[in-house]
Amino acid sequence: MFVSELKIRVRYAETDQMGVVYHSNFFPYFESARAESIRNLGFTYVDMEKMGVIMPVIEVQCRYIRPALYDDLLTVKVIVKELPVHHKVEFFHEVFNEKKELLATARIIIYFMEAKTMKRTVMPEPLMNQLKPYFT
Amino acid sequence: MFVSELKIRVRYAETDQMGVVYHSNFFPYFESARAESIRNLGFTYVDMEKMGVIMPVIEVQCRYIRPALYDDLLTVKVIVKELPVHHKVEFFHEVFNEKKELLATARIIIYFMEAKTMKRTVMPEPLMNQLKPYFT
Amino acid sequence: MFVSELKIRVRYAETDQMGVVYHSNFFPYFESARAESIRNLGFTYVDMEKMGVIMPVIEVQCRYIRPALYDDLLTVKVIVKELPVHHKVEFFHEVFNEKKELLATARIIIYFMEAKTMKRTVMPEPLMNQLKPYFT
Amino acid sequence: MFVSELKIRVRYAETDQMGVVYHSNFFPYFESARAESIRNLGFTYVDMEKMGVIMPVIEVQCRYIRPALYDDLLTVKVIVKELPVHHKVEFFHEVFNEKKELLATARIIIYFMEAKTMKRTVMPEPLMNQLKPYFT
Repeated sequence: MFVSELKIRVRYAETDQMGVVYHSNFFPYFESARAESIRNLGFTYVDMEKMGVIMPVIEVQCRYIRPALYDDLLTVKVIVKELPVHHKVEFFHEVFNEKKELLATARIIIYFMEAKTMKRTVMPEPLMNQLKPYFT
Repeated sequence: MFVSELKIRVRYAETDQMGVVYHSNFFPYFESARAESIRNLGFTYVDMEKMGVIMPVIEVQCRYIRPALYDDLLTVKVIVKELPVHHKVEFFHEVFNEKKELLATARIIIYFMEAKTMKRTVMPEPLMNQLKPYFT
Repeated sequence: MFVSELKIRVRYAETDQMGVVYHSNFFPYFESARAESIRNLGFTYVDMEKMGVIMPVIEVQCRYIRPALYDDLLTVKVIVKELPVHHKVEFFHEVFNEKKELLATARIIIYFMEAKTMKRTVMPEPLMNQLKPYFT
Repeated sequence: MFVSELKIRVRYAETDQMGVVYHSNFFPYFESARAESIRNLGFTYVDMEKMGVIMPVIEVQCRYIRPALYDDLLTVKVIVKELPVHHKVEFFHEVFNEKKELLATARIIIYFMEAKTMKRTVMPEPLMNQLKPYFT
């Protein structure tokens, strides 16, 4: 299992007139946390795109348990439970506030695709090599 | 069954550097389509908030089938399959482009809540009265 | 002078916890109104990008006079006061609500640039031909 | 003069299909940097709202010099050149990338207003006391 986390401060722009973070604004938080998790493996999503591989989001699921509030310092967790051997990778996310209350959980499915052909491909080898040790 | 639809033009701001609409930007489309569906029933979400009822999003699920592109004129469908008798309402969404290709499907669960107490409530009667005929 | 306008309905996602449209969310409104004004001339921004010309925003200025509220049906005006003879075009915008109150004014400077070379260019001829009659 | 800065990582969600940060997405960066600058003074914008004071943005101006790119780690500067003695405060911003290139400059005018009455007020005393030493 691979686990990583990122602290994110809620912006005013991300709130709505209900006084909480608008539901879809959690997805850029998840994206930032995934990017940081790749960086922690010594790789970046920018490197990946330079290698001609893009990672479009194919499916998302998110449950909102408690509201995230303006200026909250959130902890956004990224969890990969299984080594992605095919074109598909499944990310799980959990969001906590400073009181360690669970605000949301999510499951996001992403494909590895060749930018040029838009055909499914697999995780680039350099990233796979960094990720493998977490699953043995 | 209640069905409604809204045309939405994709903004440049909603695209990302993959050249497609960023995945979470579909959710404001769904929200607009739901608001319009309520308006079609002779009611508005603003009326609802004035009656002290808010409708927070509790769970979302979305599958991305084909990319939405800048300047696409999307048709965003709202489908309510069951009359919401309790605090919960389930919306289904479908997004089509001008070629009538299906781009995305979604399922969104929303609760009726009293703004003051943050306790679950039911759909306000005036809206219920408008919606009922679609389910008999 | 060339004038064009577009109706835009305020989304919940665009409000913030002050209960009004977050200030920077006016800019995608302006962008939509500009795109529509080009469409009204029988051209699209998509056509322009296909011709290898992009239109990055170089400078913006916006004054907020009254708040825009959720569900407001805004009228967003686009005004071009001078025919853009060089690489630069200046757009003026005005935003009104349904009570015809002025909510905001803006001035936005955009350059015509060749996408490949990122060098300044001029307005593509087909668009220029459509725009010219408004300035004589 | 009061100067403060904040590091901000560009999100994929903030880019557009031109491959750069969409112009209006700089404003939430400025907002975050201002919030952090207030926090550095031992105060928060949340405290301010609890004291019944809100700070709506009244006017913005921004010049875009070089594009901000996905994953760039930006340095967003906040500069207050004059102690705000009335209801108005003027913030200047500068954005740099990791190569220390200047990407954008901005000037943002904000008013102090009483949330209840929506009348102009002055900077709350506790914040003024923290800020004053920077201007003598």
